[in-house]
Amino acid sequence: MIPKGFRAAAVEAQMRYKNRPDLGLIVADEFQAGAGVFTQNISQAAPVIWSKSRISQGRAILVNAGQANAQTGRGATDRCQQSASAVAHRLGLPIDDILLASTGVIGQPLNIDALLGGIPSLVKNLSLDGFGDFARAIMTTDTVPKTAETVVPFETGPQPTIWGAAKGSGMIAPNMATMLGFVLTDAAVDKKLMKVMLGQVTDATFNRITVDGDTSTNDSLFMMASGATRPQVIEGGHDAETFRKALHKVLESLARQIILDGEGATHTVEIKVRGARTQNEALLAARTVANSPLVKTAFFGEDANWGRILAALGRSGANFEPYKVDIDIDELAWIRHGLVYCRDLDATLAMRKKEYTISINLNNGHGNDRMLTCDFSYDYVKINGSYRS
Amino acid sequence: MIPKGFRAAAVEAQMRYKNRPDLGLIVADEFQAGAGVFTQNISQAAPVIWSKSRISQGRAILVNAGQANAQTGRGATDRCQQSASAVAHRLGLPIDDILLASTGVIGQPLNIDALLGGIPSLVKNLSLDGFGDFARAIMTTDTVPKTAETVVPFETGPQPTIWGAAKGSGMIAPNMATMLGFVLTDAAVDKKLMKVMLGQVTDATFNRITVDGDTSTNDSLFMMASGATRPQVIEGGHDAETFRKALHKVLESLARQIILDGEGATHTVEIKVRGARTQNEALLAARTVANSPLVKTAFFGEDANWGRILAALGRSGANFEPYKVDIDIDELAWIRHGLVYCRDLDATLAMRKKEYTISINLNNGHGNDRMLTCDFSYDYVKINGSYRS
Repeated sequence: MIPKGFRAAAVEAQMRYKNRPDLGLIVADEFQAGAGVFTQNISQAAPVIWSKSRISQGRAILVNAGQANAQTGRGATDRCQQSASAVAHRLGLPIDDILLASTGVIGQPLNIDALLGGIPSLVKNLSLDGFGDFARAIMTTDTVPKTAETVVPFETGPQPTIWGAAKGSGMIAPNMATMLGFVLTDAAVDKKLMKVMLGQVTDATFNRITVDGDTSTNDSLFMMASGATRPQVIEGGHDAETFRKALHKVLESLARQIILDGEGATHTVEIKVRGARTQNEALLAARTVANSPLVKTAFFGEDANWGRILAALGRSGANFEPYKVDIDIDELAWIRHGLVYCRDLDATLAMRKKEYTISINLNNGHGNDRMLTCDFSYDYVKINGSYRS
Repeated sequence: MIPKGFRAAAVEAQMRYKNRPDLGLIVADEFQAGAGVFTQNISQAAPVIWSKSRISQGRAILVNAGQANAQTGRGATDRCQQSASAVAHRLGLPIDDILLASTGVIGQPLNIDALLGGIPSLVKNLSLDGFGDFARAIMTTDTVPKTAETVVPFETGPQPTIWGAAKGSGMIAPNMATMLGFVLTDAAVDKKLMKVMLGQVTDATFNRITVDGDTSTNDSLFMMASGATRPQVIEGGHDAETFRKALHKVLESLARQIILDGEGATHTVEIKVRGARTQNEALLAARTVANSPLVKTAFFGEDANWGRILAALGRSGANFEPYKVDIDIDELAWIRHGLVYCRDLDATLAMRKKEYTISINLNNGHGNDRMLTCDFSYDYVKINGSYRS
C-alpha cells in the first residue's frame, strides 16, 4: 500500500540503457517533512551536492540510472540545474524543491539531452500506480527491483504507511555505499525527529551491509513525509518508538534485499559478533570478517574453513584471546575455545543454505555488533570485470 | 650463488601433499647472527610463537607446507617441541637452536608422524645444492618457486652474497601476511644492525604488497648471517648502506615474485601515490586502491574504469580535492584535474600489459608511498573456493 499524498512515474529516456525505464520521478503532492543521508566519500557526485543542500524542502525526486554524473567537471552542476529546472517548470514548483539522484558509471558526462527529452512524459505519467515502474527504473546491475512497506501500528488514530524502494548491488559497504534509497510515509513526523531517526535507523541497517567494501560517490537515502495522516509523531511519544520500529523494518528489509541481490552472490551471511571489549571492536571484527575475500570465497565454495575467520578476526584490530573464541553457524556449535567442535560435514551442510548466520563470541567483554554480507563468486568477477562494456 | 656456511635439503614427508617435497631444512654450519619479522595477527601459529623467542640464536630452520599448525590447541606446542627435538638430536645442536615455520590450512592438527618420519633423510640430504629443493618444498598454492640473490658490492674486501627464498601466494597483505621468507648471507653483520635493517627493509618491500588484504597466522621472515666473509658490517659504515641496498634488492625481488604469482593473478600493478598531506595518508590511499575488489576486477577486465579509483581514494581516509587529482598509467597522462585526459582506448591498451604502474598525484602535500597488487580473476575465486578440498 502506497502512502497517501505521493505519485510516481518512470520512462525509457535511453540515457544509457535500452528497452527499460531508466528515469524515475516521485512527487509529494502533500509535503510535510524531508530528510536524507548521503555518502561520506570525499568525491561526491554533483546530484549529491545538489540534494544535500535542498533536502529539507525538496518534494520531488528525479532519479536516473546508468550514469552517475560524478567526476564530470564543472558541466555537472549545470546539468543538475537544467534537470531540476525542467522538472520544476513542468510541476509548477520552485527549482529548489527538486531533488536529484544518479547512479551508474563515474566520469561519463550525463546524457542531458536524453534526460530532458524524457521529462515531459515522465511528469505526464505521474500516478498513484507508478511506484513499481519507479523501482525498476533505478536499477543498474540489480537483477530484481527492491521495495518494502509496512503499516505503522499506532494504537489510536489512523495508521500511516511507510514504503521504500532501493537499488544495490555492487560497491556496497558501510557509510552508504552505492545505494539509492527512497522512503515515503503519509505520517506527519516532526522534522527534527525524522532527521535524527533516519540517521539512527540507517546506521543500524544500510550501514551494516557490505558486498565488497567499496563505497561510492553517489549514495543517497531520501525520506519524505506527506503528513496526510494526523496527528503528528513527536519526540518522546509512544508513537515515536512505534514509528521508529516500523521504519527500521522497512530499511532492514531493503538492506537484506540488496545483499540477497549482491553482484554474483549465491549466499547471504549475517556476521554477528558479541563478547568484544567494546561495540566498536565488535564492529571492526564483524566488518573485517564480512569483507575478507578469503572468507567470502570460502562461503562461495561452501567450505567450512574456519581458520580464515579466525585469521580475519586476528587482524581486525579487535582484542581477544584466540583460544577463547566460540563460533556458531545458525544453531550449530562450530568452534569452542578456538577449536573445531562439530563434525566438518555438519558445518559444511550448514553452509549449503542460501542464508545463514555466523555468530562469533570473543568472550572478552560486552560489545556486540553485526554485518550482513554475501559471498564472492565467479559472477562477481565477471560482472565487475566488464561492467562498462 | 649460495652464501658460504649454509646447507639445505627437502624431502617428501607426505604430511598433506603427495609426490612433491613438503618438508625443508636450512642449517647454518657457521653462525654469526639471526633476526626475524613475524605476523602481527592476534592469532599466531605455534611455530611463530616458538621461533620468535629463539630467533637470535636459531641456526637451523625446519619448514613444512600444507598444514599451518595454527589454532590446533595445546597439542600444537608439543608438536613444535617434538619436531625441534628430532632435528636437534640429528644435528647435535641444543633444541633452542632450532627454528620452525609452517604454512597451510589453519586448524588441522599437524601430521607429526609424517613429519618425524621425514627428518632422518632430511638431515642426511643436507647439502650445498639443496636450496632449489628447499624453495620448492615451502610452496602451497604457489605455481613457481621464488628465489633471489645478489652479490654485495663492497668496494674493498671480500664481497658476500645474499640469497633468499619465499612463498606466497594468497592471504598476502601488509604486516607480513601469509608469507614465509628465508634470507641467508655469508656477510658478518652486527646483530643489532641486522635486526633493525631487516625490519626497515621488510616494511619497504614485503609490507607493501597485497593480494587480497588478508593477513595470516603464520607469516615469518627469517634471516641468518653465517659470518663466513669478514670484516663485520657495522652501523654507520659505508658498507652498512651498501649492504642495506643489496638486502632491499633481494627482498623487493621476492615481494614482486609473490605478487606476480598471486592466486589467479593475470596483472601486476604498482600503485604509487604522491602529493598526499602525509606519508600515512599516501599509504592509506595506495592501500585502499590496491585492495578494492572493484578496482581489482577492473584490472582483470582491462577496463579503464578510473571512477572506481577515484571512489576508492575518496573513502580511503586521505584528504584531497577530487578535481585536483592527476593519474598516469606508466607514461600515459590518464587523468588531469580529476577528469579523463587521454583517449579511453589508449588507457585500455596501457592496461593490457601484464605489469604496469598507476601513479596518483593528490596534489595536496608531500607525502608519498606505494603498494604492489594484482588483479582479481575467476581463478582467485576458484582457488579459494576450493582450497581445502
